[in-house]
Amino acid sequence: MRLDLDLPAGLDLIVDPDVLAGLSHDDAEWAPYGTALAAVRPTNTAEVRRIVAACATRQIPIVPRGAGTGLSGGANAVDGAMILDLSRMNRIVEIDAENMTATVQPGVVNDDLKAAVAAHGLWYPPDPASAPWSTIGGNVSTNAGGLCCLKYGVTRDYVLGMEAVVGGPAGEYGTAVRLGRRTTKGVSGYDLAGLFTGSEGTFGVITEVTLRLRPARREAPRTVVGAFGSVVAAGEAVAAITRAGLLPAALELLDRTCLRAVEDWKHLGLEADAAALLLAQLDTPGLAGDEEATAVADVFRTAGALWSEQSTDEVEAEALFAARRLAYPALERLGPVLTEDVCVPRSRVPEMLSSIERIADRNGTTIATIAHAGDGNLHPLILAPAGDDSARQAAQAAFDQILTAAIALGGTVTGEHGVGLLKRAGMRQELSAGVLAMQVAVKQTLDPLNLFNPGKVVG
Amino acid sequence: MRLDLDLPAGLDLIVDPDVLAGLSHDDAEWAPYGTALAAVRPTNTAEVRRIVAACATRQIPIVPRGAGTGLSGGANAVDGAMILDLSRMNRIVEIDAENMTATVQPGVVNDDLKAAVAAHGLWYPPDPASAPWSTIGGNVSTNAGGLCCLKYGVTRDYVLGMEAVVGGPAGEYGTAVRLGRRTTKGVSGYDLAGLFTGSEGTFGVITEVTLRLRPARREAPRTVVGAFGSVVAAGEAVAAITRAGLLPAALELLDRTCLRAVEDWKHLGLEADAAALLLAQLDTPGLAGDEEATAVADVFRTAGALWSEQSTDEVEAEALFAARRLAYPALERLGPVLTEDVCVPRSRVPEMLSSIERIADRNGTTIATIAHAGDGNLHPLILAPAGDDSARQAAQAAFDQILTAAIALGGTVTGEHGVGLLKRAGMRQELSAGVLAMQVAVKQTLDPLNLFNPGKVVG
Repeated sequence: MRLDLDLPAGLDLIVDPDVLAGLSHDDAEWAPYGTALAAVRPTNTAEVRRIVAACATRQIPIVPRGAGTGLSGGANAVDGAMILDLSRMNRIVEIDAENMTATVQPGVVNDDLKAAVAAHGLWYPPDPASAPWSTIGGNVSTNAGGLCCLKYGVTRDYVLGMEAVVGGPAGEYGTAVRLGRRTTKGVSGYDLAGLFTGSEGTFGVITEVTLRLRPARREAPRTVVGAFGSVVAAGEAVAAITRAGLLPAALELLDRTCLRAVEDWKHLGLEADAAALLLAQLDTPGLAGDEEATAVADVFRTAGALWSEQSTDEVEAEALFAARRLAYPALERLGPVLTEDVCVPRSRVPEMLSSIERIADRNGTTIATIAHAGDGNLHPLILAPAGDDSARQAAQAAFDQILTAAIALGGTVTGEHGVGLLKRAGMRQELSAGVLAMQVAVKQTLDPLNLFNPGKVVG
Repeated sequence: MRLDLDLPAGLDLIVDPDVLAGLSHDDAEWAPYGTALAAVRPTNTAEVRRIVAACATRQIPIVPRGAGTGLSGGANAVDGAMILDLSRMNRIVEIDAENMTATVQPGVVNDDLKAAVAAHGLWYPPDPASAPWSTIGGNVSTNAGGLCCLKYGVTRDYVLGMEAVVGGPAGEYGTAVRLGRRTTKGVSGYDLAGLFTGSEGTFGVITEVTLRLRPARREAPRTVVGAFGSVVAAGEAVAAITRAGLLPAALELLDRTCLRAVEDWKHLGLEADAAALLLAQLDTPGLAGDEEATAVADVFRTAGALWSEQSTDEVEAEALFAARRLAYPALERLGPVLTEDVCVPRSRVPEMLSSIERIADRNGTTIATIAHAGDGNLHPLILAPAGDDSARQAAQAAFDQILTAAIALGGTVTGEHGVGLLKRAGMRQELSAGVLAMQVAVKQTLDPLNLFNPGKVVG
């Protein structure tokens, strides 16, 4: 079947309903998705250009996707859409060790890139928990965060330039443009590469990305663990870390529900007696790093930790961070998870954690919390048994109340997962009418036919 | 005189031609500027809103400016413009130590902010050489770089959010909007705060900025100096630093002409026997930092330095970096300086330096080079005696040839100074027609009346 589309020879359209259904949504279980017309898996920019041009002639919406690990519905199909599965565009085009850059196709998996550049003594820091599966194209499209953002920033901080297939002002739909640069610095014109980063595929299809790298860390980071009698007490310790002038590479929080879900699944030998654990990673090299680790353990204790210690066992330390990364899939095993992603100023983390507890009580819902606590980026995970409509309604109410609480604390409704479908209403609550109008205007300018991932963000 | 404009009471229009002339251009001596209608010095957002609204009703172009230290003509007046001098909006609104942020009006001077946050144990890294004079509003509008970008990034990496007075989709001209966020992370909608950063006042007037800070460095950085027999040899050493996996906080190059110009002016006791000096600053704390300093000195020697040593004398080290910062004004004393700002991939620095030498010879011009060499960001400063027309033509030819050479090496025509007026032609050479069309479309969308700093960047 070719749907009368002028597509490159050898590029098959996927129309099998079961396969299509699997490609029609990401990991945001609660986000709706429509019935796609077909899916296609290009392997190079020329094919993407042909597909975009062909879809434009028929006004077929284009929904790009990578590994589908998104948590906001950003890759969910709309009715009649062409799904552009970029997972086969997974070639590392170049690792330029002298200039500490890598140029990759969008389907390259984050951890695969990390491994490839490590062989050159280099490091690609952005580390979303999905790094073993998620792709650079998806990471760039959502401006993905991760664990080490506190010290090393988010995906945006590593995007130097990109190639994208666009339409509108640049030319006919299917035109490829190079945005940004390959150099460390550059201010030649508006920062369109930055604008495309985090735009969730609504301006065009990213077909290549040039990323900044850093020298590899010369020694393994130190891990400090603190156990707390309540999540709020752990939150107080997070604020105390900043007050002490400490900048860990990561500062993560896991509550008891998360720890138990991981332990029940993976049997890593985690203890889950405390109400919450804080995991800090310190990567300043040498003695200075040792001193920072001691200082973090001291701050934890002063802030009321039940116990606090530097992990001297690398296997144990790795197990703790593995638990952090596995928390989301572990909880998913218990039923549909409604994932929050609020970010508040660091000093408001204790208040936000209190709010979450009150909201859980008020709505009679179970909320497990994992957090990039040092960033103020909290992921309360709202659980609802499958098929229980009133539990689902309670979960949705809790979700909305958490967004409102985060905004009231000076925060944002999405720290790193993106707006997609789940945060569209929240974004309208957060941003002023004027700013929303600017967003809509930019979208209409760069995609006048509204072909690229329509209905996401502001589209 | 009120020009029939509906301006706030007590806000005087400056119409004295001599004062106006001084406010009608920045430090780019070679960039043209027009005759402004008037200038005005608001002290708060409400006044800026009124001024923008009043100018809009009369279609009077608005040219915002800070300290006027720009080097591309980005703040230069056009005929009939209202100059919006923001230097009186110089209040530090808030330093939020717990969240490591500062919120400031645009007229706050970079070094004043640095000093204010240092009192809280915090650090605002971006350090353009103009930091003692240039303002945060100007730094944000040009996405200013500086010396420590190699390790710590540019202004963009520190801008969390801003308030701006805009027109167009957000509402009538004179509408204030808040872009971005106050939190460490945030992806709620398109990154308009990022888009405004580096937009040179062409989308609106920035009236407040919220900046990310870092903990203060706990010890003074180490300085390593290397003297080289040629600038190209120094360039080779820069490439070797990266190959060795070293990431200095700064890696600066000064050639003999620059050193002599500073010494003749300031008598810092600099030796200027070598053709070029490299200055590296290493700020990893403790023993690891000492080891890095030793490694850098070794790399310099292996790469052919005449001599190389760690400066053990803090006064001497400070004098060397002071020389770096003073190089531009020192050269300006010798005559009109045409300032280049190309950025090439780090590995191409030696080739770019060779090109600059050839271009100087070919055109019979004197070109002094200072460089953020570790970033690949070179500032060849083309000197031409005042009143010598043929020297001026030769300088312009050299300027254009340097841009072409940088583009050929995969570089950009402006690393950190901005497009302004001087790099408009270069930008058109660097970017494709499609990308330029996207830039123009975004400008027209956000400023449909073309009131904000018309004629700059793409306007």
